[in-house]
Amino acid sequence: MKTHSFDVAVIGTGPAGLQAAIHASRKKVSVAVVGKIPKSSAYKAHVENFCCMPYATGEDLLAQGRQQAEKFGAVFFDEDVVSVERQAGAFRLSLEGGDALEAKALILAMGISRKKLGVPGEKELLGKGVSYCVECDANFFRGVPVAVVGCESAAVSGALTLLFTTDRVHLICEKLQVSENLAEKLRESAIELHEGRRVVEIAGDGAVEAVVLDDGSRIPVQGVFIERGAKGALEIATALGVDLDPESFQYVVTNKKQETNVPGVYAAGDICGPPWQIAKAVGEGCVAGLEAADYVRKLGEAD
Amino acid sequence: MKTHSFDVAVIGTGPAGLQAAIHASRKKVSVAVVGKIPKSSAYKAHVENFCCMPYATGEDLLAQGRQQAEKFGAVFFDEDVVSVERQAGAFRLSLEGGDALEAKALILAMGISRKKLGVPGEKELLGKGVSYCVECDANFFRGVPVAVVGCESAAVSGALTLLFTTDRVHLICEKLQVSENLAEKLRESAIELHEGRRVVEIAGDGAVEAVVLDDGSRIPVQGVFIERGAKGALEIATALGVDLDPESFQYVVTNKKQETNVPGVYAAGDICGPPWQIAKAVGEGCVAGLEAADYVRKLGEAD
Repeated sequence: MKTHSFDVAVIGTGPAGLQAAIHASRKKVSVAVVGKIPKSSAYKAHVENFCCMPYATGEDLLAQGRQQAEKFGAVFFDEDVVSVERQAGAFRLSLEGGDALEAKALILAMGISRKKLGVPGEKELLGKGVSYCVECDANFFRGVPVAVVGCESAAVSGALTLLFTTDRVHLICEKLQVSENLAEKLRESAIELHEGRRVVEIAGDGAVEAVVLDDGSRIPVQGVFIERGAKGALEIATALGVDLDPESFQYVVTNKKQETNVPGVYAAGDICGPPWQIAKAVGEGCVAGLEAADYVRKLGEAD
Repeated sequence: MKTHSFDVAVIGTGPAGLQAAIHASRKKVSVAVVGKIPKSSAYKAHVENFCCMPYATGEDLLAQGRQQAEKFGAVFFDEDVVSVERQAGAFRLSLEGGDALEAKALILAMGISRKKLGVPGEKELLGKGVSYCVECDANFFRGVPVAVVGCESAAVSGALTLLFTTDRVHLICEKLQVSENLAEKLRESAIELHEGRRVVEIAGDGAVEAVVLDDGSRIPVQGVFIERGAKGALEIATALGVDLDPESFQYVVTNKKQETNVPGVYAAGDICGPPWQIAKAVGEGCVAGLEAADYVRKLGEAD
């Protein structure tokens, strides 16, 4: 378990994160990029409206972008971020594989999770037992049975976090997709894993009472945490104290320099809100990368 | 001399203008793009830091971007804009070749002119007879001899404009580069053309007294208008009533939707200020294009 130190850490490997890494690296600060490229929403896209590029697949674009960022010196960690903390003017990222990253500035470019479950009861019971944020809501479910739905690092680390407040945690997942390190922690824990199962309904009358699985079984719970995909924007932002837009509470608020309200924390791409376009993402990434590099250089001058 | 009507007119053919044209066209509004591609500051660039594109020349990128915009329906006018007016909720652009364009929304993406003369006296006498904006300053030189320096449409149309306020206008130019239409207007006018000559000094003690040419000759003038390149951002913005940033007075102010203070007028790219990056330009172009298209569609619904 090592701690790696960088000037700038970029969370997210889509067009915004890659462009931020390219521009920050070119300003001669050290840059780490964390995330799994195939998770970018651009990865499966067919791109024809991004100037000035002939028709291309998202997969090819992202591979090209990574090559550019690496050429300028950025270092890639193909892992999810499990948690982020502020520590004495710096940021500490815990990675799925167990290592940690320290950085003086942070660029949030992990997009947004658009992955609701889409089952009966999910919408109706939101806020009445259904939650998309373990760290926000775990405290409401002290000592009562809860379920976490999801197969990736966010779900597993969310389930592990819930063990601090309750001892009855179910994890429902079609096929587990986490690092061996995290899988081992899961096996060693008291979490009850229901692998190979899907949730088909969240049941309850005014409050969550149970989740119903595709084999017809019914697990009595009072809380359901839907944690699909990597660590959500909302959670990481909340953990850092970054402001979200007051209307939808879905996007990180930035100014024209892509600064958030937290010094040293920048954001770019879908996490900042629509339009969901590669051009907009690289534009914001460019600015965030340059500004984050400047921020770090000024810290150095002040030392 | 025809008038062409479009929903959206984009002034500028660099990455910001092309990306704006692509996104507006895809929203099924009619789009005109006005300007000369080789004038984009990206044209002569060697591009290696734009995600997610392998090394390319600016010329190739812009040709590709134009092809995309045309594929989605944008129409290109390879001419400079000579003047812009607001007319009853619409905008009217006079083109160098004599035709006019009418549009319901306007996207300013013509970059900025970084073309100072770089001769002794230019900096020292700025505001004391040296000006970069005929429309702003012509009135200060009523009835006195003035010189315009430049070879393109901005210089020629600037010189023609000055004839409204004075009858002694010199145009100094190494090699004229304007449409036949404009060249003819110049020949028919009272403007004294000094072709093949360069200005080597602006002379004067506290106020402009003369321009000195490379053949040693000295033309007594009280005003020198430096008008190199196409119609400047400053001039067009001023003509439309668009706010410039109060600090440098060099850039158009926009919000995150790339809206200026004038309804229906958007701006994108270098004209909005640094960083001078293709990624930032396409990002702003994308947003401006989508927003301008929405604006036009809403006008249609209100009808």
